[in-house]
Amino acid sequence: MLTRMSKLFVRTLRDDPADAEVPSHRWLVRAGYIRRVAPGMYTWLPLGLRVLQKVEQIVREEMDAIGAQEMRFPALLPREPYEATNRWTEYGPNLFRLKDRKGADLLLGPTHEEMFTLAVKDMYSSYKDLPLALYQIQTKYRDEARPRAGLLRGREFIMKDSYSFDVDDAGLQASYDAHRGAYIKIFDRLGLDYVIVKATSGAMGGSASEEFLAVADFGEDTFVMSPGGYAANVEAVVRPPATEQDASDAPAAHVEDTPDSPTIESLVDLANARFPRDDRPWAAADTLKNVIFRLTYPDGTRRPLAVGLPGDREVDLKRLEAAVSPAEVEPFTDEDFAVNPTLVKGYIGPTSLGLGGREDAPGRVRYLVDPAVVPGSRWVTGANEPGRHVFDLVCGRDFTPDGFLDVAEIRAGDPAPDGSGPLTLARGIEMGHIFQLGRKYAESLGLKVLDANGKLVTVTMGSYGIGCSRAVAAVAENTSDDKGLAWPRAVAPFDVHIVATGKDAAVAAFAEQLAEQLAGEGVEVLLDDRKASPGVKFADAELLGMPTTVVVGRGLADGVVEVRDRASGERENVASEEALARVLQAVRS
Amino acid sequence: MLTRMSKLFVRTLRDDPADAEVPSHRWLVRAGYIRRVAPGMYTWLPLGLRVLQKVEQIVREEMDAIGAQEMRFPALLPREPYEATNRWTEYGPNLFRLKDRKGADLLLGPTHEEMFTLAVKDMYSSYKDLPLALYQIQTKYRDEARPRAGLLRGREFIMKDSYSFDVDDAGLQASYDAHRGAYIKIFDRLGLDYVIVKATSGAMGGSASEEFLAVADFGEDTFVMSPGGYAANVEAVVRPPATEQDASDAPAAHVEDTPDSPTIESLVDLANARFPRDDRPWAAADTLKNVIFRLTYPDGTRRPLAVGLPGDREVDLKRLEAAVSPAEVEPFTDEDFAVNPTLVKGYIGPTSLGLGGREDAPGRVRYLVDPAVVPGSRWVTGANEPGRHVFDLVCGRDFTPDGFLDVAEIRAGDPAPDGSGPLTLARGIEMGHIFQLGRKYAESLGLKVLDANGKLVTVTMGSYGIGCSRAVAAVAENTSDDKGLAWPRAVAPFDVHIVATGKDAAVAAFAEQLAEQLAGEGVEVLLDDRKASPGVKFADAELLGMPTTVVVGRGLADGVVEVRDRASGERENVASEEALARVLQAVRS
Repeated sequence: MLTRMSKLFVRTLRDDPADAEVPSHRWLVRAGYIRRVAPGMYTWLPLGLRVLQKVEQIVREEMDAIGAQEMRFPALLPREPYEATNRWTEYGPNLFRLKDRKGADLLLGPTHEEMFTLAVKDMYSSYKDLPLALYQIQTKYRDEARPRAGLLRGREFIMKDSYSFDVDDAGLQASYDAHRGAYIKIFDRLGLDYVIVKATSGAMGGSASEEFLAVADFGEDTFVMSPGGYAANVEAVVRPPATEQDASDAPAAHVEDTPDSPTIESLVDLANARFPRDDRPWAAADTLKNVIFRLTYPDGTRRPLAVGLPGDREVDLKRLEAAVSPAEVEPFTDEDFAVNPTLVKGYIGPTSLGLGGREDAPGRVRYLVDPAVVPGSRWVTGANEPGRHVFDLVCGRDFTPDGFLDVAEIRAGDPAPDGSGPLTLARGIEMGHIFQLGRKYAESLGLKVLDANGKLVTVTMGSYGIGCSRAVAAVAENTSDDKGLAWPRAVAPFDVHIVATGKDAAVAAFAEQLAEQLAGEGVEVLLDDRKASPGVKFADAELLGMPTTVVVGRGLADGVVEVRDRASGERENVASEEALARVLQAVRS
Repeated sequence: MLTRMSKLFVRTLRDDPADAEVPSHRWLVRAGYIRRVAPGMYTWLPLGLRVLQKVEQIVREEMDAIGAQEMRFPALLPREPYEATNRWTEYGPNLFRLKDRKGADLLLGPTHEEMFTLAVKDMYSSYKDLPLALYQIQTKYRDEARPRAGLLRGREFIMKDSYSFDVDDAGLQASYDAHRGAYIKIFDRLGLDYVIVKATSGAMGGSASEEFLAVADFGEDTFVMSPGGYAANVEAVVRPPATEQDASDAPAAHVEDTPDSPTIESLVDLANARFPRDDRPWAAADTLKNVIFRLTYPDGTRRPLAVGLPGDREVDLKRLEAAVSPAEVEPFTDEDFAVNPTLVKGYIGPTSLGLGGREDAPGRVRYLVDPAVVPGSRWVTGANEPGRHVFDLVCGRDFTPDGFLDVAEIRAGDPAPDGSGPLTLARGIEMGHIFQLGRKYAESLGLKVLDANGKLVTVTMGSYGIGCSRAVAAVAENTSDDKGLAWPRAVAPFDVHIVATGKDAAVAAFAEQLAEQLAGEGVEVLLDDRKASPGVKFADAELLGMPTTVVVGRGLADGVVEVRDRASGERENVASEEALARVLQAVRS
């Protein structure tokens, strides 16, 4: 296939788009691959669509290879199935909802668990029909609060979502493993630098799940790895509780005046000055920080939540959000404090939360603590009065939390929860997510089949997603450099970019002939036949990022053309009569 | 590619779906190609999706062949561009509208003229960039008042829409002709029985346009053809006004008592009994029937419209709807008559409409007449009193209509408007529509380029659509029979359906081997390996409709298999060792 730049619907831009925060967004817009229509909504220009279609085809081939069958549900869906699983409500403001001309409630599908479950229920009834894997490659919608980074977090995007259906747990594990294998092949073919990490299951429900993250400095996800092989999204890290301590020798808790100590740092300084320890100085980790949040549940209910954690750690908001989903989290405001007079900002201690009393008693605040806050641990914490703290407050003796909640920030060097060594942190883009959903959806929607004994059993499901449009950005993020895009051959819109420079008719004729010969060999060729300066053409070739560029210019008079490799930057002079063979070799290697 | 029926996600149904009105709908549901999710919203099951994808690929190839470039806009769009062209309002209740979490107005795109126009405006600025043709294959949305007939009139559907951009009318004509040629190739490849007819442009605006209609008894569109080559959608038929007559010898109009004559038939009978003509009996065509409608404009304004036409014709509501679009038409109700006391139901005459007075005067009704109602024509019509009619009322002497409106029903035998002979009528499904839009959108949205003289000129556009999902149904409608679907090879989900019957291991082995050999040759094979009776398998093979079926059964013992052609019903015994070659010949012929 031969496309001429003079005809291609593209314009490259010299300046970064105003809202571009990450390299992939900047380059995809500047190189004329995508165009913004509205926040989180992008148009695929011809170059961009070619990359997307190649990504989709790779995904399709690997899904077909594990026996998954492609189908397609509507994107516009009735409310009822999502009502049955409560997701109509749980999705909250992330769901695009609308009414039709008759007033019926509709939604734009964010994922299709319900629809696939109902389709299988509609058509299958026996264990003999299983295992079954179905998928679709389809436009999906989420009304993100903060669409950003171009294709990385859009409101309309393309996903491959697949679903497996099995009669038992062993079958689900096999289906999960098959998908995991297919995902590895897909991300390998896409040329992504990626990791597989433990994940939380978010709004999907379910248990075991892993994410495929493309490693990227500007990724939204943070993940951790240990030398011993532990790998997890930080949101999925759950540290085991610390070892319980013996506090039988601890003195009774005593309240002390601690004027002007509203921060952990000021408190530690004051404690060291006025109440020095014998063994070592006070440290932030000796203090118990209690942070109050306001949770809003999908049904609109609001409740405060107190999180207790050592004073040397901050609450990681993304970890907290993941942990309390589908509830939404907001910080407690001054107004919230005003209506909760038992909570003294800056001096909150566990004893002000009404612990031990009825859950719904006035002033009672649910209190969840970091895994460090175990029975026997001894703390300096707020005394619920301005300017006063309590010392030697012992967990289990003086207060009993409602449970553990591991939402403290994870730091490089923290031990892996499984003991496999110190953690390192990096950032990534979530490219794929595989879940063992289990029976949640099948139960809600009544998907049962007869087993080998003629007994009705609830089907167990897996759910597996790949962000196809996001993959375009992730590959760009992984491969672009300071000159522009640099596509791996598997997804490049064209294999070869031929640049003809100067006004020499022989140059134009040779470039044209080479382009046609390559096209005749099945190579996808972009020929820059524009009347533009060599500088403009070279810059555009680097910006557009085809894997191989052939420069036909003055050297042709001496029988030489130049072959450039975009990724490595290597340039090679090739005899013009050998150009065809050399390029074919590059393309087919 | 080899697919086994035992694994394919399909269930055939014995009974017609309750809402199936047309054969394509019935068979596509019963054969497990599609499944209804909600009114006008369908799921593509694996078999159906394969047909859709083949249709899309044929469309894509022919669009690419005329140099059109594929891209893709979001389906979810901001209001503003559609506001600029007034289509946000004009689309009325057919548009799905919604708000995002911040309250911004969004819509689900019904067509994308605005978006393509803005994209070209954004990127191009010179006549040198033109001509340009862009297209997308994309999910579209219309909130149809009466979604029906399965895929034929859905609320979510797949369309190929393309747009051409030219600097002058000659360029537009060339772009239009190129699309017309591509459409002919596409519909030929789809194996459709189709006609190309003149069309109205509906809500699109613009001038010249043609429709590609698949001939189908259950089609929603009616079209006419003449022996001399005239062909038009009935909605687009505009008959020229009749020759003006000399009415100088006509007596003055005179009102007569015509008791009990509220219908044309009773009036003609009464006139022949009480006021016989000398030359011939009165006929319905001598009477002038005046029908009142209520028009509702997109801005909500309501106005009555009177249509005058010879009493032997009815108003064709679809022709009227097309003629007054985007206004919506409803019949005048008794309540409407009650608030318009000058209009006497059953006895309305032109003289009661306030003709000649100001357009907005009380009691003034806009009055448009059939092309037969020309100056000098003489009529019997209502006298605006119950039981009385006026005779010898002469158009141009006694009343002057506001203009012509040709919305009478077209009948077989009517003369073609271009004099090319009597018309025949038939029904069809609108498969494609090509428009010369002209400058309407470019003007509304400011798409101008510099011409060769450096002057800014407004671009002229064409708009070209193909209903891809509808094409699946249209092909089914054209080709199915009383046993089920019968796909043309170009769009069949599989080329060959191999049916193995009985429990003989040799039969199963041969069927399997043949399937694998065919798959190895690149043939798409469906192998019915289920444990089911031969009768069930044969019926399913006919229902599913692959072009070629191979039956491997008892005959194998005698070295014979049977090759069946689904479309023709022909059956041929073939020596088993020649089966592969024979099937390959059928597939590749």
